[in-house]
Parts: sequence; C-alpha cells; structure tokens
Amino acid sequence: MTQLFVIKIGGNVIDHPQALDAFLEDFAGIPGPRILVHGGGKIATRLGEQLGIVSQYVQGRRITDDATIDLVTMVYGGLVNKQVVAALQAKGCNAIGLTGADAGCIPADKRPVKTIDYGWVGDIDPGKVNTGALGALLDAGLVPVMAPLTHDGKGHMLNTNADTIASALAVALSGSYAVRLIYCFEKKGVLEDLQNEDSVIPLINRENHARLLAEGKLADGIIPKIDNAFAAIDAGVKEVLIGDAADLRVNVTGAVSGTLIVS
Amino acid sequence: MTQLFVIKIGGNVIDHPQALDAFLEDFAGIPGPRILVHGGGKIATRLGEQLGIVSQYVQGRRITDDATIDLVTMVYGGLVNKQVVAALQAKGCNAIGLTGADAGCIPADKRPVKTIDYGWVGDIDPGKVNTGALGALLDAGLVPVMAPLTHDGKGHMLNTNADTIASALAVALSGSYAVRLIYCFEKKGVLEDLQNEDSVIPLINRENHARLLAEGKLADGIIPKIDNAFAAIDAGVKEVLIGDAADLRVNVTGAVSGTLIVS
Repeated sequence: MTQLFVIKIGGNVIDHPQALDAFLEDFAGIPGPRILVHGGGKIATRLGEQLGIVSQYVQGRRITDDATIDLVTMVYGGLVNKQVVAALQAKGCNAIGLTGADAGCIPADKRPVKTIDYGWVGDIDPGKVNTGALGALLDAGLVPVMAPLTHDGKGHMLNTNADTIASALAVALSGSYAVRLIYCFEKKGVLEDLQNEDSVIPLINRENHARLLAEGKLADGIIPKIDNAFAAIDAGVKEVLIGDAADLRVNVTGAVSGTLIVS
Repeated sequence: MTQLFVIKIGGNVIDHPQALDAFLEDFAGIPGPRILVHGGGKIATRLGEQLGIVSQYVQGRRITDDATIDLVTMVYGGLVNKQVVAALQAKGCNAIGLTGADAGCIPADKRPVKTIDYGWVGDIDPGKVNTGALGALLDAGLVPVMAPLTHDGKGHMLNTNADTIASALAVALSGSYAVRLIYCFEKKGVLEDLQNEDSVIPLINRENHARLLAEGKLADGIIPKIDNAFAAIDAGVKEVLIGDAADLRVNVTGAVSGTLIVS
C-alpha cells in the first residue's frame, strides 16, 4: 500500500510564525500523499475577548455556544486555515483547505447532552468519514489541510478536537493507505522523565507499554494519548509517532525522532 | 459540451437568512455541474467595527490593509463560506468551500500601485485560473463554493471582487464547458425604466445593445455590468444572465427570467 502521512500540528506552532514557517517548509517538502490537521491557537481566544465573547465553562469543560462556533468557524476555518494554505502554496505544495463540512468529508454527531451540554461540539465515527472524497482529492495530487471543524449534516458547523480528527482520518484511510499518524507536540517525544528532554522513549509497543505503566514511567498527561494511539493502531493505522514539530523532516523518512508507537 | 452554471450571489442575499436559504434550496436542486461564487455581506463591516478596524478610503476607494485582509479572510473564507457549505450539504448538495488559494485555483497579482495603493487586492488573469484543479473537483461530483478571495502565490491572501471571480471562472472554464454565467442581483433583470420593475429587457445582443445605448435606455450603473458581460462572451462564455436570486430555479432551465446577454 502507498504510504500516507496524517500530521497534526497544535496551536502552539500556529501561534509562532517562525516555527510555523519552518514546519510548513518541511511539510511542503514531503514527496507523497499527506494530510495536515491543524489546531486553532490562541487567536480565537484573543479575538473572542475583543468581541466580548466570553467562554462558558461547565464543570471545567469549555462550552461551544452560538457565538463561539461562529468565532472558531471564522478563525480556524477562515484565517488560520487560509494562511496555512497560502503559505504552503507559496512553497510549491498544492494545499486545499477543508473543514469536515467541505465535500462532506467528516460528518459528525452533535455531542449528546448527558450531564453537560457541550453545545456545538461534534463527535466523529471514523467509519463515517467520506474516504471517497478524500481519496479523490489525494489522487488529484492535492494536499488536504483540515481545520478542527466538522458538521452535523443538518446545516450546523461543529467544533471538534484536532487530535480526534487526525486519528479519525488516519483510521478511515488505513483501508487504502499504510498510514503513519504523526502528532507534533511541544516535547521531543514521550519522556521517561519529564524533567529530562533526553529521556525520549524511542519505541512503545504492547509489551514495553505494560512495563512502563507498571513502573510508573508514563506521566498522567501522556497516558490517554498513548491509549488513543493504540486504539488507532487497533483500528488499522500502521504506526503512530509522537514527536517535535521541528523534527518533521526526520519523521517522514524511515527514521524516527520521537516516540514510535506500534502494535 | 456539458453545460456548466457559474452563479454569483451578492452580499444582499447573504445578509438575509430566509432569502439565502430559499436560494440555496434552488441551487442545491440544480442537477449538473455548477459553481457558486458568493460576496461577503455586511458581516465583515459589522465585525470590523466591533474590532475597531476602520475601513480606510483613498479617493473614495476602499483600501484593504493588513487588518482588513485578515478580517475578510475570516468572515468571507471562514464564516460565510462554511455556513453556505454546511447548508448546501444539509440539502444534499456536495459542496466544497474554496478560496482562490485552495488547490491554487485562482492565482492573482496584487494590484500595482499607480495613484492609489489599494493594499491587499488581487487582480485576476482568467488565463491563469487553474482549470485542471477545478475540473478535477467538478469531475468528482463536487460543487465548488468560492469566497471572494484569491492569493498572490507568495503566501498572501488577496481581496477580489466576487463579480470578477465569477467572470474569470466562467471564461477559464468555457474551453471545457458551455457556460451560462448568472449574476443574481436585487432586480428582476436589466430594466428599461428603473422605476418600473416590469420593464425587464429579456434579451440583449450586440444589435439591440447599440440601440438601447443610443436611446439612453440603460442606467449608468448597469452599463459597465453589460460591458463586462460582453467581454466574458467575447472570451468564450456562451451566455450571461442577469436576474433575481429568487428566479434561479427558472434560470437554470432553458427558460429565462431576467436579462439574457448573448453575442
């Protein structure tokens, strides 16, 4: 199967123009099929403050109300997405900016209200991702750049976590491609010792995962990320890589800088 | 040749949810290949005021400064574009939202400074429109929904008039399709008497155009629109139609409600 990279960058990179430019330079240089999923960054929060849109929280969880979904549709789907697309185009990469509504590529369900009403937040079933549309774009040599937004099929945009979108796309496309899902984050990889940037664990598989957990070597924050990585692998993704955005150039070769998670 | 509709709706429709919904219902019902180009509406102006972005004018012409290009990229490329796409998807139309940067479909040149520096405004050469990318999307059964934005190929988004984009797309695609370019505007068509909505001129060709001009029957505001229509026809577009957004359902059949402009 052809290799496909699904690469997620977070808001921390979006917020730093120089880091973003360096990352996009590396991303543009990848020769084969690839998809970029981007987070939002702090621009939405800053703009929301200027517009008097106050984020609502219930039990510590942020709520996406009417004003907030319009705000993130503007900022993530408009400003951030098009700036990334225009920058990639300038670097010779034939990017096409998308939300989950475009080409109906990621249908989602508005999160059901149990104890908390999250508002306009979308949950995805990877089985419903429109792989036909995404495949047609990839076959045409286009490079999808996905904002963290989906839609409910009833005319509403929905706010959806970028990590979740990246994972769902990776799973959905794993039937047609050998997918390496790369999460670019702010550390060099999964660390054995959070105080020591040199303590990157190069490979996690089922075997050493159990041992690392038993020995208490995995920080609380990273445990769900690794669980999600295994879930993606169980659903067909070939491998998941957690590493630094600055190391992308290495991580799209056979080599690995960061933590590779395999079955 | 297969028929293609390139349809432009202005901000006046965007600003009225009920009129917009009725229009999108009609648009979704068109069976064949079609492209929608939308204007911006007043949301950008209103939001700009809230954000303290003051529109700059030089000799009566609006200038697109740094803050303004970000604003219109958010509002036109994000909010308006995605609301239209999500609404069309809900109506069973496989819309894909685009700016001229996406898939590099409309490269533009930043308007050169002569007496006025218009800022981040893009001028288009229809010969440079990426018909390959647009053709691939149309062939995949997708319906492009284009925001009035282009890019300079150097990483900058540019503000571009929606009428101009519609005309450039129609001209560029006229090599592969029999194009009817439809401008939806606020009147029933080109009127012989601006005070009388029933005085629509059903057909304008070179012959009666000269006569209508000589008799002073064309209002100042409409003369450049008709000149642009003839320019599009000279460049290969089969026919141009100027009519009411509410009459779209008629205007995508063999019939005409409004003014048809032909060679």
